[in-house]
Amino acid sequence: MRIDGLQYANWSEKIFRQMRQGGLDAVHVTIAYHESFRETVLNFERWNRWFEQYPDLILKGTQASDIDLARDTGRTAIFFGFQNPSPIEDDIGLVEIVHTLGARFMQLTYNNQSLLATGCYEAHDTGITRMGRQVIKEMNRVGLVIDMSHSADRSTIEAAEISERPITVTHANPHDWCPALRNKRETVIQAVVDGGGMFGFSLYPHHLKGKTDCTLQGFCEMIARTADRFGVQHLGIGSDLCQDHPDSVVEWMRNGRWSKETDYGEGSAAAPGFPEMPGWFRDNRDFGNLATGLRATGMSEDEVAGIMGGNWYRFFRDNFGPVTT
Amino acid sequence: MRIDGLQYANWSEKIFRQMRQGGLDAVHVTIAYHESFRETVLNFERWNRWFEQYPDLILKGTQASDIDLARDTGRTAIFFGFQNPSPIEDDIGLVEIVHTLGARFMQLTYNNQSLLATGCYEAHDTGITRMGRQVIKEMNRVGLVIDMSHSADRSTIEAAEISERPITVTHANPHDWCPALRNKRETVIQAVVDGGGMFGFSLYPHHLKGKTDCTLQGFCEMIARTADRFGVQHLGIGSDLCQDHPDSVVEWMRNGRWSKETDYGEGSAAAPGFPEMPGWFRDNRDFGNLATGLRATGMSEDEVAGIMGGNWYRFFRDNFGPVTT
Repeated sequence: MRIDGLQYANWSEKIFRQMRQGGLDAVHVTIAYHESFRETVLNFERWNRWFEQYPDLILKGTQASDIDLARDTGRTAIFFGFQNPSPIEDDIGLVEIVHTLGARFMQLTYNNQSLLATGCYEAHDTGITRMGRQVIKEMNRVGLVIDMSHSADRSTIEAAEISERPITVTHANPHDWCPALRNKRETVIQAVVDGGGMFGFSLYPHHLKGKTDCTLQGFCEMIARTADRFGVQHLGIGSDLCQDHPDSVVEWMRNGRWSKETDYGEGSAAAPGFPEMPGWFRDNRDFGNLATGLRATGMSEDEVAGIMGGNWYRFFRDNFGPVTT
Repeated sequence: MRIDGLQYANWSEKIFRQMRQGGLDAVHVTIAYHESFRETVLNFERWNRWFEQYPDLILKGTQASDIDLARDTGRTAIFFGFQNPSPIEDDIGLVEIVHTLGARFMQLTYNNQSLLATGCYEAHDTGITRMGRQVIKEMNRVGLVIDMSHSADRSTIEAAEISERPITVTHANPHDWCPALRNKRETVIQAVVDGGGMFGFSLYPHHLKGKTDCTLQGFCEMIARTADRFGVQHLGIGSDLCQDHPDSVVEWMRNGRWSKETDYGEGSAAAPGFPEMPGWFRDNRDFGNLATGLRATGMSEDEVAGIMGGNWYRFFRDNFGPVTT
């Protein structure tokens, strides 16, 4: 089973076919960066058209059993998530509404302060806000998973403490392997796994040691060490694939409507666009390389299978609806 | 089994308890008259709070099996509908979105011309519009039922012809029994039933012969005659109960935001508010009186059971999702 914990591509039939070539049974796709509720609904609509247009390649995923259906019918189940809480605006009732529409992950912040928590680019991290506490409770109730990939450390640790259900960092790497601002320190990873949460490893070059030149062996050995330290059952892939987008989209991701000046995020004025992917992970077709690389570290088949998808599958199964008693 | 094909009350625990006292297994409730998409979402949110608050009395209905669940657990299944296509604005993609959120009926017009068709108060009925044809096709695809209760005759007959699935008039009476503008002529009822559709009898006094003074016997004999003429299997109740609302709400229903002058709909300047209900049908507790009255006309138990809910049940079962092949 192969599941990717985060992608945001310029979706097309080509990419859906590459998902099939890469054996992807499920992908969590981002459908909002800075969108308002109404704009996010337009993105749900766009996906509805793709599901109508490519019924032989993709299907809408809302529960783990949709992954089984996808496997049985040779398709990829698409699960929706937001990288920012902008789609719920200032309205807690929208948490259940977006869940009903199919959202299964929501980051409490993108890089900036949000109504709910502090983003990883802010100078001061004041933790979970008053509304944030209420929204975490509501997300727990309906089964909308808290994703802290772009949040600041204190906010992430507090979210893990406040949440009564496991939380995630869908796409990042350990900070001590590659000290990018977005990569996570041990205390943060520990807080996530202590609550039964999931950590997805990112292949975005700015998150990799050596960036585009990072080796498959180096990446997989980092995963093996993380498994030794935190427990392999908490780990998966969250590739952060941003395939086929023009540079204007990375600019939108970083700047939304919040700044008149240009923020380069993990890039720079000299390199404002998407960095080149490593040669061993160009796109969805290369998931097999990750499995090969993980095996080469000496991991067991069970461990490799867990990281490639089994761990996400269990997490999806337990966290995408109300708690069943 | 008891199902009401339309209500729009000032919802409260009292009314939910009265639904239980009246033995209602399911009610189609209006959640939009003139609301935009975002405003309609606020109404979905309000119902989500009621489902949380009164889990022992009501549950959200999206398919006929929810009626079985409601019966098995002594609750009433609430199904959502719109009296106007305003919630989909000018965006056909919203048809599937509102269906996903739980809408199961949508009128193509309230009393006025809409983007889709002509309402029954317009001087000229130009039938189904260009967008209307597209929206009917999309409603057919997802399983959102076309309701023509407030539409003009030609628009209704065209909708029945264009639609590939049965349509409804959820709440009206035959025009030859009570010649109200909202009541339906034989050609209109025939078009609805010819396509396998459903006609729900209204208890709104302006739709009754003699208004508030209409007798139970007169009402039930009219139903019996309609059954003889059109087939009992196409008939149900659509009470149009508007309980506990202040007069300002009937003003909103009639005027929305579309007029600076006051439109009195089926009322008048002298009687602008809700008319008094007949003594034998004050509210949800009186559904039993309808069954008694229908039996007194000489109908069989099967026929009475069909009109009281069985016919709506079959209709809900067959029309609330994509066509299954």
